[in-house]
Amino acid sequence: SLAHRCHHRSTAMLDVPFLPFCAFLGTLGLLCLAMVGTWCQHWRGGFSLDGSSRTFNWHPVLMVAGLVVLYSAASLVYRIPNTWSGPKLPWKVLHGSLALGAFVLTVLGLAAVFRFHNSQGTPNMYSLHSWMGLATVLLFSCQWAAGFGAFLLPWAPAWLRALYKPIHVFFGSTILMLSVASCVSGINEKLFFSLKNGTMQYKLLPAEAVFANILGLLILIFGVLVVAALARPSWKRPDSDSPDSRQVQDALGG
Amino acid sequence: SLAHRCHHRSTAMLDVPFLPFCAFLGTLGLLCLAMVGTWCQHWRGGFSLDGSSRTFNWHPVLMVAGLVVLYSAASLVYRIPNTWSGPKLPWKVLHGSLALGAFVLTVLGLAAVFRFHNSQGTPNMYSLHSWMGLATVLLFSCQWAAGFGAFLLPWAPAWLRALYKPIHVFFGSTILMLSVASCVSGINEKLFFSLKNGTMQYKLLPAEAVFANILGLLILIFGVLVVAALARPSWKRPDSDSPDSRQVQDALGG
Repeated sequence: SLAHRCHHRSTAMLDVPFLPFCAFLGTLGLLCLAMVGTWCQHWRGGFSLDGSSRTFNWHPVLMVAGLVVLYSAASLVYRIPNTWSGPKLPWKVLHGSLALGAFVLTVLGLAAVFRFHNSQGTPNMYSLHSWMGLATVLLFSCQWAAGFGAFLLPWAPAWLRALYKPIHVFFGSTILMLSVASCVSGINEKLFFSLKNGTMQYKLLPAEAVFANILGLLILIFGVLVVAALARPSWKRPDSDSPDSRQVQDALGG
Repeated sequence: SLAHRCHHRSTAMLDVPFLPFCAFLGTLGLLCLAMVGTWCQHWRGGFSLDGSSRTFNWHPVLMVAGLVVLYSAASLVYRIPNTWSGPKLPWKVLHGSLALGAFVLTVLGLAAVFRFHNSQGTPNMYSLHSWMGLATVLLFSCQWAAGFGAFLLPWAPAWLRALYKPIHVFFGSTILMLSVASCVSGINEKLFFSLKNGTMQYKLLPAEAVFANILGLLILIFGVLVVAALARPSWKRPDSDSPDSRQVQDALGG
């Protein structure tokens, strides 16, 4: 049967169970979050809302929390096998709510850097990091609005949902890749800005530079693993509009 | 039949033919290459081998040529439907040769920046850009050597090839994502280094900054599209070890 063959083909790849992998990803994501918080708290002076560089410090923390960690959690919801049967609406609401939470954190993260620049008289939106980052956030806002309109509101016909779904899935991974690229260019840029004087120069690799470089590499690894998990065929929900979905679902579940 | 169902499922996605898409990717890759060359020639003083910043200028050009454009060409070889039937060896040789060419350009690109740093007395390997970039090149060297050993040399048993193949495919896309992230962080860093004085400051967005920011965005778009093309199920070669491969191949080809 198709189910048997598909199952066979997927087990021909290296078999890793999804949920333990997800627990590993969660741990890695929380480690990134703890490290970006530690960097800003321990080396960059902590947090405030006064428009100083302590306001800027919310920017990396909120971006890693929103556009990397919480965004990834939202993106992986439909890879949980429990979501493949039963009513879809609760999972849609969970997916949309996590993404909305990620979006709110992201917008607050943008507000932090704009407030810092404005209070220092620094121009906004000139670096490649800022262009790439804003493009990522704009894509994310379109993605959320289009997903909400197509999948959560009741008006969209089935053919429109079927047409839009692969586009939504494609941009889901793309936005995460852009987000991770924005993070590493931002960390790199911030270290050149901050580590300038005497023995603290970035090129002399003080402890802060090693710590933040490792943070950048961990964010990269996290992003690559999430994108790989999203792309893995055997972890995807079988197409519900296929006549074989019931069979495939049984084979993958069993 | 399985072939019919697989075919049906793939056409349910938005159908884009591979070869025209590939021509578009080639054009975009050449545009990136032309733009990075123009940037270095027109704004950064051109090219030389004397250890000055004109030696450094080989670094971005060779990295975009090798680790982005030629690497992508190598990675897409097995998505050409002609490679799915007939003898495999010529295609393996093509894939390995393109990748080797990309690797040689990459190593020359590294040599350019090391020579520049050494002749200026600047330390090597301190920024996140350099850590990420070197990690990418090291992964690429392991990938090439392991691919050569497993797929081109005759000694590897079929089970080892089957086990390693998904790993090779995974790292193929991963290395490209890391490479693109390295490019954008490098362009961002170089613009902060170079655009410092008076009316030429990066934050005032002179023409060079706009040009190089657009270059960075085009490299990102190129990378995302290549990774997406590699991941697209209907563009993959059907598994040759599956009993249905002949059938699937016919359906996809017809």
